[in-house]
Amino acid sequence: MKILHTADWHIGKSINGQSLLEDQQYVLNELYKAIEEHKPDIVIISGDLYDLHYPSKDSMVVLEDALSTINLELDTPIIAISGNHDGKERLNYGEKWFEKSGLKIITQYESMFKPIEIKDVHIYVMPYFTPADIKAAFKEKDISTHQEAADYIVEQMKLVIDKDKTNILVGHLFVSGGKSSDSERPLSIGTIETVDASTFDPFDIVMLGHLHHPFAIQSEFIFYSGSLMQYSFSEEKQAKGFRLFDVQDKAFKQSFIPITPRRSFHVVNASYNEVIHENITIPNKDDYFHFKLTDMDHVTDPLLKIRKIYPNTLQLSRQDYAIAQDEINVDVHALSDLDIIKSFYKHVTDEELTGVKNEKIIQLLEAENNKGADE
Amino acid sequence: MKILHTADWHIGKSINGQSLLEDQQYVLNELYKAIEEHKPDIVIISGDLYDLHYPSKDSMVVLEDALSTINLELDTPIIAISGNHDGKERLNYGEKWFEKSGLKIITQYESMFKPIEIKDVHIYVMPYFTPADIKAAFKEKDISTHQEAADYIVEQMKLVIDKDKTNILVGHLFVSGGKSSDSERPLSIGTIETVDASTFDPFDIVMLGHLHHPFAIQSEFIFYSGSLMQYSFSEEKQAKGFRLFDVQDKAFKQSFIPITPRRSFHVVNASYNEVIHENITIPNKDDYFHFKLTDMDHVTDPLLKIRKIYPNTLQLSRQDYAIAQDEINVDVHALSDLDIIKSFYKHVTDEELTGVKNEKIIQLLEAENNKGADE
Repeated sequence: MKILHTADWHIGKSINGQSLLEDQQYVLNELYKAIEEHKPDIVIISGDLYDLHYPSKDSMVVLEDALSTINLELDTPIIAISGNHDGKERLNYGEKWFEKSGLKIITQYESMFKPIEIKDVHIYVMPYFTPADIKAAFKEKDISTHQEAADYIVEQMKLVIDKDKTNILVGHLFVSGGKSSDSERPLSIGTIETVDASTFDPFDIVMLGHLHHPFAIQSEFIFYSGSLMQYSFSEEKQAKGFRLFDVQDKAFKQSFIPITPRRSFHVVNASYNEVIHENITIPNKDDYFHFKLTDMDHVTDPLLKIRKIYPNTLQLSRQDYAIAQDEINVDVHALSDLDIIKSFYKHVTDEELTGVKNEKIIQLLEAENNKGADE
Repeated sequence: MKILHTADWHIGKSINGQSLLEDQQYVLNELYKAIEEHKPDIVIISGDLYDLHYPSKDSMVVLEDALSTINLELDTPIIAISGNHDGKERLNYGEKWFEKSGLKIITQYESMFKPIEIKDVHIYVMPYFTPADIKAAFKEKDISTHQEAADYIVEQMKLVIDKDKTNILVGHLFVSGGKSSDSERPLSIGTIETVDASTFDPFDIVMLGHLHHPFAIQSEFIFYSGSLMQYSFSEEKQAKGFRLFDVQDKAFKQSFIPITPRRSFHVVNASYNEVIHENITIPNKDDYFHFKLTDMDHVTDPLLKIRKIYPNTLQLSRQDYAIAQDEINVDVHALSDLDIIKSFYKHVTDEELTGVKNEKIIQLLEAENNKGADE
């Protein structure tokens, strides 16, 4: 069975007031071509179809068009789950009619424990959740972290899982600690939302959304498809596209297939004069730019002038005043709460946290710890 | 063929911050029972399904539930059009999948000139429009009023109409001048949005939404279903429900069937003491109230106190200070623009419009008239 895996469409996203809807329509058109070419048996969308809980009417038109093109025109079943950006009620509006055409948009936690069976492939879904969501949905007292919530869900799934089938999990979450990483260290997300990769050992393949980097985790069975296009300047050099899985019996092959966007994102470090005299090397003036420029002191309205040449300039920084972009190299797991705060304070202000401020922080931390003990 | 005609659901409406969603769910449940009892071949909804262009998620859940109950559970086809309260893109989201189950939600003007054919009944739809909408959609220069837009649309419909069929028009607009009114004067709407009843002579039956009174017009072939429930205190005594049509060949019978709401709307004129000592005659303390009270001068927080007895009090007015509720009895068609403004000014301020104000109005009117001549 051939599965096309995509995620993080973020339909309706805009950056600094610039709508990306045309670019999104462009990469969706590329996706349609890929579906025509590869003819997958199913398309899986691992959450964040919309960028906003309250999508604009234009976003709704684009998403409906995408879903109907894939599902009705290209006659391809779809399984989609809600991500943290999706408003559940808006995303699955119409689901009772959609299902008749093989379009499943799943937002309900109750749906997690009954796999979608397609021949000998069983697909489990895990719509985006917070610990509180799972605690509330299943009246479980002892869930306060993402890890505990995921553990609970997978335990329930294990009660029904059929080991003779190929079991696929579709989720929208942070995973850390890819088991099979040889040369690369697993990407450290460093947030309390992290779920350990080993949690998903009962599954043959895990198809995730949430992280926009298609190689965010090195694992033999856990994959992010990545987003369909770049969504920030921090994704400047990231490949974007989708994954194709070929599942045969309990084995599978997969590959990442890139999509070329209409416009790329560039961070340009230069002087104002170099930019305004077009002395910089860029492939396309219509690309998206973040210019970090020197020598702007005596220029009035630099953004206006630059946009006459590079109309899709989204951001302009004066490099003269730029804050040093060094990283905090601290192993937060090895530090106390106070030391983490001190390190952060020093990084931001370049001063030590001392005197009254230091005492206040200690008081607050103590109060917080005591509060925890009362609950 | 049996047709159930309803309109103006206004799902999501709230009055003075009080959501009516539970009451709407109640009358919808009554509607489902009526559909089970009367088994119509089709349900027609003449616009304003939602109250807001941006419906809340709860409203979307209630509307989806209503449409799926009627269409999927009760297996009844639906034709619905957009009203002025509906956001088109939100209302018809999913339409490509809906159609497969006989749920047609029509918001596009291009759909007006191709009737929906059900046996020998042809149903024409006229989603809510403004003159500018029709002017833009069909690139027609000479459309500036609702009457001109409706004339244009009906002229186009006449090109395709089959006189041998029963031709039904489904619309959402103001109609004036019921032809067959004997004893009653036609309801005078008195707005420039009015379309004359004779415009619709080419049709056998016209099923309208927009006006909430089910007897807003006296005509032998034009009908408002009215809203499903009361939506303001001005609708206090209005019957609410739906219409049933029985269409045989070119003839039809119709009747208005009332729905009893969960709560009624009452305007209560009384003294504060009468209310607080429950010396008023009302059927149900949980009904919706607008209290117009005297003797409140020395009462603090009267609304809080009243709501302890009548929790769904939506409005409280001090009758002592109430502005006289007299009507403007002026035939605006017989007056000049200036005289209409003068009459309005006097009504509102109780003073004559004279001096500088008068001259300024004259200047503005002249400037406006000259501007019109330039276009």
